[in-house]
Amino acid sequence: MVDEARDNTGELLSKGRMEAFSDGVLAIAITLLVLDVAIRPPGSPVHEFLAAWPTYVAYLISFLTIGAAWIGHHGFTARLERVDPILLRLNLLFLLVVAFLPFPTRLVAEALERGTQWERMGAVVYGITLLVIRLLFSLMSAYARREHLYRSGPDDPDFQDARGKFRVVVIGYVVTILLSLVLPIAAIALYFAIAVFLVVPFREVARTLTELLRGSRA
Amino acid sequence: MVDEARDNTGELLSKGRMEAFSDGVLAIAITLLVLDVAIRPPGSPVHEFLAAWPTYVAYLISFLTIGAAWIGHHGFTARLERVDPILLRLNLLFLLVVAFLPFPTRLVAEALERGTQWERMGAVVYGITLLVIRLLFSLMSAYARREHLYRSGPDDPDFQDARGKFRVVVIGYVVTILLSLVLPIAAIALYFAIAVFLVVPFREVARTLTELLRGSRA
Amino acid sequence: MVDEARDNTGELLSKGRMEAFSDGVLAIAITLLVLDVAIRPPGSPVHEFLAAWPTYVAYLISFLTIGAAWIGHHGFTARLERVDPILLRLNLLFLLVVAFLPFPTRLVAEALERGTQWERMGAVVYGITLLVIRLLFSLMSAYARREHLYRSGPDDPDFQDARGKFRVVVIGYVVTILLSLVLPIAAIALYFAIAVFLVVPFREVARTLTELLRGSRA
Amino acid sequence: MVDEARDNTGELLSKGRMEAFSDGVLAIAITLLVLDVAIRPPGSPVHEFLAAWPTYVAYLISFLTIGAAWIGHHGFTARLERVDPILLRLNLLFLLVVAFLPFPTRLVAEALERGTQWERMGAVVYGITLLVIRLLFSLMSAYARREHLYRSGPDDPDFQDARGKFRVVVIGYVVTILLSLVLPIAAIALYFAIAVFLVVPFREVARTLTELLRGSRA
Repeated sequence: MVDEARDNTGELLSKGRMEAFSDGVLAIAITLLVLDVAIRPPGSPVHEFLAAWPTYVAYLISFLTIGAAWIGHHGFTARLERVDPILLRLNLLFLLVVAFLPFPTRLVAEALERGTQWERMGAVVYGITLLVIRLLFSLMSAYARREHLYRSGPDDPDFQDARGKFRVVVIGYVVTILLSLVLPIAAIALYFAIAVFLVVPFREVARTLTELLRGSRA
Repeated sequence: MVDEARDNTGELLSKGRMEAFSDGVLAIAITLLVLDVAIRPPGSPVHEFLAAWPTYVAYLISFLTIGAAWIGHHGFTARLERVDPILLRLNLLFLLVVAFLPFPTRLVAEALERGTQWERMGAVVYGITLLVIRLLFSLMSAYARREHLYRSGPDDPDFQDARGKFRVVVIGYVVTILLSLVLPIAAIALYFAIAVFLVVPFREVARTLTELLRGSRA
Repeated sequence: MVDEARDNTGELLSKGRMEAFSDGVLAIAITLLVLDVAIRPPGSPVHEFLAAWPTYVAYLISFLTIGAAWIGHHGFTARLERVDPILLRLNLLFLLVVAFLPFPTRLVAEALERGTQWERMGAVVYGITLLVIRLLFSLMSAYARREHLYRSGPDDPDFQDARGKFRVVVIGYVVTILLSLVLPIAAIALYFAIAVFLVVPFREVARTLTELLRGSRA
Repeated sequence: MVDEARDNTGELLSKGRMEAFSDGVLAIAITLLVLDVAIRPPGSPVHEFLAAWPTYVAYLISFLTIGAAWIGHHGFTARLERVDPILLRLNLLFLLVVAFLPFPTRLVAEALERGTQWERMGAVVYGITLLVIRLLFSLMSAYARREHLYRSGPDDPDFQDARGKFRVVVIGYVVTILLSLVLPIAAIALYFAIAVFLVVPFREVARTLTELLRGSRA
């Protein structure tokens, strides 16, 4: 009995540190993105500022994507009762790819200035990275389910949301990666759309809007 | 009953991770600012060191501004009883703009060396970023109030302080953005003044000073 | 009695902050690695992307090594009951070397493009850094054991794993450092193998695979 | 009664987030130091590696100094019962200067390659930054004492250590800053000595050594 309690404490601690470490890596990866935002000489001030639009777009897409990864991750760990050694490693693998994202982000930002051939390569590398992030997240939650690491009770709404969108997002990424070979700019626009789709909690937004409308009518 | 407790725990955990992630992003954004502080060749050592003053000024203003954002944010979450999916996303949007601040900071620092036209552009972009940070913070707390996410009891003094200053600060930013089209240097000085105004807790300082005076008289 | 409780609380707090600070440093060091991943001009897009393979390899090895250090560290602190001033400093020394790792990582990545002489130097410096990380980790856990800082009960599985692999890994590093004087590329491949060996929890993987096989047969 | 409990909770939360934010900033500042460690072309691999010694020295001194600041800070907050708005701001000011340290560190590293005049300037700026860090830390703890923010009970040993060394360290910095105008290299050596002095807990080391000797005799 005592040993079990101790083990549980140990596992709770492990979960706490897995969260702390993941929060750290995700927070740093998301904040490092700004280092690649920079104006583009030469030109007048306003021109240099506007010419930097690809770096703004890349910042926006990657920030939303990592943000969505964090929201899904927090929903996932809220559901966990305990953590085991293999889950810790799967989580590390997941972080390895998320922490890599600033590099493809830079590729896309640079590609948008260097022409179609570059955009094609940038958009493919970017899409594959995004797809692998989703697949690893899904692998992690499949493992946790198989090993009964979840606590009983309902899912965290953010976790439900992330899982509900999984199939659509994976298909979306695959299609967009293929599209990027032909129309890389359209592909980048689609990555942005998928990032927004991932972040927005449609059910909650609908409920809140309905309440607002009902409130204004009453 | 049990489900409610579980939900509360889930929501408390969510709040804890929202705080941890926000602390991470704000701490990183504030610490990355130093990467753009650098001496300006050519010249003698002292000359190069002094010639870098725009980077010191930009570091100071942005550090205080992000510091004020952190203080307000901690006061805000201290007031929260629970967190919901939409609040998490609003918080992410808030962090998106705060984590972007190192870029306009660099713009201002570089502009101060490149002449009036650049200062104008830098000061406008900087001011708009600062304004949006405040507006998103206000949106976040308006949402929390509307959805009854606050616990009962008095406000955290730092949250009171941040809200009390909101109107003055927003007007201050709008005026300074307009001013920066004419007198960009004066606008940058004003951004500094507003950052100091945001950080200093006047009521507490007054109380402490009064006590000090009373103590020295007695 | 009260004093003891207070002391325990103080020491638990110390442990909590040692964990938080270590998580921070490890998370940042692991995430900074991406800053040195970059394509290598000139060439066609695909050529430039593929020519950057040394930076991908270096990212992968160092990410896994720091990841393994984090997993071992979390297992170690899960085992600690309390922390004393000397342990805090040993931990700081450990972090000093882990936080230094991005530099040898960069050396290795650059060396792979600059030829054998550089690879030799890079592989030696890299290996010595990895060896010192392991030795300091071992010193830290030896000190904790000697000073009875551990709580009673079984070891955390990750800590068991890290200690069980210690001897093999140290011998592996020493051999690889010597090898890198002759065959630096082979040495770098071996560092990768050791990193994988450190991260993979063989016992758990074997158990999970056995269960999977049994499950598919049944 | 309830309000008091609530207030205490609020203040405990504030303390927790002040710790989390400070841990974040200190961990990032200490880990960013490695970004300025770099080999110095041209030359043979070993020559370039050795020619980079100033960056290693600068890394070492600043890592130990920020490490000592973190240890002192954790000892200080372990002693706190609650936090008030002014203390939060003093802490922010303290972090502002610690997060600035990577810049003077870079100055010193570059100065060691550029000759005496640069070393003089670098060593003065570095010393003043270190001195201000200590003074702000002392101001923070003086304020906490004056406002009765400490809990009753004995001091944390790390906090005792930091306060016991305060006077010596401040005198040491002032003397070294003056010395750096004449002998900047000697001054940099002294900054290293002071950093080691700050980090080493002499009382604990003496006790452990005594026990070791006693143990080996018995």
